Amino acid sequence: MTTKIGPAIVDRRTVVAGMLAAGLTVAGHATARAQADPLPSWNEGAAKAAILDFIRRTTAPGGPDFVPVSERIATFDNDGTLWTEQPFYFQLAFALDRVKALAPTHPEWKTEQPFSAVISGDMKALMASGEPGLIEIMEITHAGMTTDEFAQTVIDWTRTARHPRFNRPYTDLVFKPMLELLSHLRQNGFKTFVVSGGGIEFMRPWMEQVYGIPPEQVVGSSGITQYKLQPDGTPVLVKEAKVEFVDDGPGKPVGINRFIGRKPIFAFGNSDGDQQMLEWTASGTGPRFMGLVHHTDAEREYAYDRASPVGKLDKALDEATKKGWTVADMKRDWKEIFPS
Amino acid sequence: MTTKIGPAIVDRRTVVAGMLAAGLTVAGHATARAQADPLPSWNEGAAKAAILDFIRRTTAPGGPDFVPVSERIATFDNDGTLWTEQPFYFQLAFALDRVKALAPTHPEWKTEQPFSAVISGDMKALMASGEPGLIEIMEITHAGMTTDEFAQTVIDWTRTARHPRFNRPYTDLVFKPMLELLSHLRQNGFKTFVVSGGGIEFMRPWMEQVYGIPPEQVVGSSGITQYKLQPDGTPVLVKEAKVEFVDDGPGKPVGINRFIGRKPIFAFGNSDGDQQMLEWTASGTGPRFMGLVHHTDAEREYAYDRASPVGKLDKALDEATKKGWTVADMKRDWKEIFPS
Repeated sequence: MTTKIGPAIVDRRTVVAGMLAAGLTVAGHATARAQADPLPSWNEGAAKAAILDFIRRTTAPGGPDFVPVSERIATFDNDGTLWTEQPFYFQLAFALDRVKALAPTHPEWKTEQPFSAVISGDMKALMASGEPGLIEIMEITHAGMTTDEFAQTVIDWTRTARHPRFNRPYTDLVFKPMLELLSHLRQNGFKTFVVSGGGIEFMRPWMEQVYGIPPEQVVGSSGITQYKLQPDGTPVLVKEAKVEFVDDGPGKPVGINRFIGRKPIFAFGNSDGDQQMLEWTASGTGPRFMGLVHHTDAEREYAYDRASPVGKLDKALDEATKKGWTVADMKRDWKEIFPS
Repeated sequence: MTTKIGPAIVDRRTVVAGMLAAGLTVAGHATARAQADPLPSWNEGAAKAAILDFIRRTTAPGGPDFVPVSERIATFDNDGTLWTEQPFYFQLAFALDRVKALAPTHPEWKTEQPFSAVISGDMKALMASGEPGLIEIMEITHAGMTTDEFAQTVIDWTRTARHPRFNRPYTDLVFKPMLELLSHLRQNGFKTFVVSGGGIEFMRPWMEQVYGIPPEQVVGSSGITQYKLQPDGTPVLVKEAKVEFVDDGPGKPVGINRFIGRKPIFAFGNSDGDQQMLEWTASGTGPRFMGLVHHTDAEREYAYDRASPVGKLDKALDEATKKGWTVADMKRDWKEIFPS
């Protein structure tokens, strides 16, 4: 996979290149100003103080809360925690664009729902197809090709697609305060993982460049793949239109156990889909950090929580209040949202 | 998981402690004599030369075969590659011991096959139950408890169980030349993974101490787990008697893709179950290393290949010959087998 994707990433013009430059700048600043402020995009307040205090305590040699490097596992949700998830999950935007791209070879889609709705841009009809319709779209658009081909498709899409409101590549709409946090954790010996309901093969092709998180530290939902030898003897993995594992809600502790095999000591999410990951993290002994991003800034990003169809934050917010988990209020706690 | 297991590992008397000491000695020697010979337990010959040459070429800055650190992924089979797998997979020995331990609470097993055969030590009747019987035993003995409880059970077993021929803990029967190889790879920036048909929850509790491979770098077969809240609100993962993924044969590239998300550039196996992992590794561009351990030493360990019911090495050996993969002949290439 990587040999094919590597050059593509290096080649491409704006999408990830821009993010990468931004990321490097952030990292550069963070290093230079490490002692002054490793989280310059965070306003002073309880959230920032809790984060810095936790990292300081768990890495202080000889201190009562010291955690050995091998146990410094930090997990992050992706959609709404590391990048924007409104007005819809970006992976759905990718899938809808794939339907349009594939339509010429599927003339039957002109009259078949949910495809007809996607092609004609009739979002109301699409939503009427409900979850079964969306699952059908996700399965069809994520299958019938090799894992290498799919990765290339994702890379190509991130090059050209633009967010409808911000008119920027989706991979630009990552949260600068969280990039700083990832970087600060790694500088302190933490291993940072993504644990997302998103598709693992959709996330891996760009996350190393954008977040500094390598493929082997990305946990996500997956479909079945089959090992096959092509006629010339070259082996490939073919993606099938069948969901294998959903890494969301109670699936997150399952995914963490399966992929990582250790309980995190630090976890950050933003929705009810992250509640069990935070509970699982909290259930270990010794120091623990549980955090939620609360989207409260309609002007700079979006404001939503209990009633949102995407990224609903209701039960997890109540549990956070009850148990004293850290809540990062976007409007109050974040000086900047996106890398400029 | 780890907090519970940590002390158990530190406590225990011989099993892993012995191996750990041996491992540290090996690592210490390797560092001190790095320039002289990082693989002292390997005899001079083609296999050793091929390994050292590959590591030298891929890590030489500016050289034509240089591979960046992030791409230095090395995968190892476990049974028969890193430790002995004869006269039967050690995980089966564990399962049979579990049946005996659980028998008092399952009086019905006295007359029910395959359990009756295990309890009475009738290996012939057990083998007559075939694969369905063995799968039933594996599922029953690996389920009905939490992941933490299972990990503790594995640790307890490795403390007391002894290999029937060598009368040593199973975790002592690891291959010293391979420990040196793992260590040498890591010293050269490689990330070492186990990719085994063995159960992931059976391997993780002891591999970090014995091989220096952390849980998040262990890929294996797995069963279904369910997230549940205990009456007091504590979350647990409960192991169910249902296989979810078999990481063997064509399942190995699938497991590598799912867990690691990159193609290895270095892979070592010992049986036909590793053939696809080696093919998958070979199919990438740039420098590649594919290796097989050939068990040829009945005196010091075991001698078996094409006709063996356990660890059959037939097609993969032919492919290795045809494609020039490295074959480590145990009798010829290994000065020592086990740590003393």
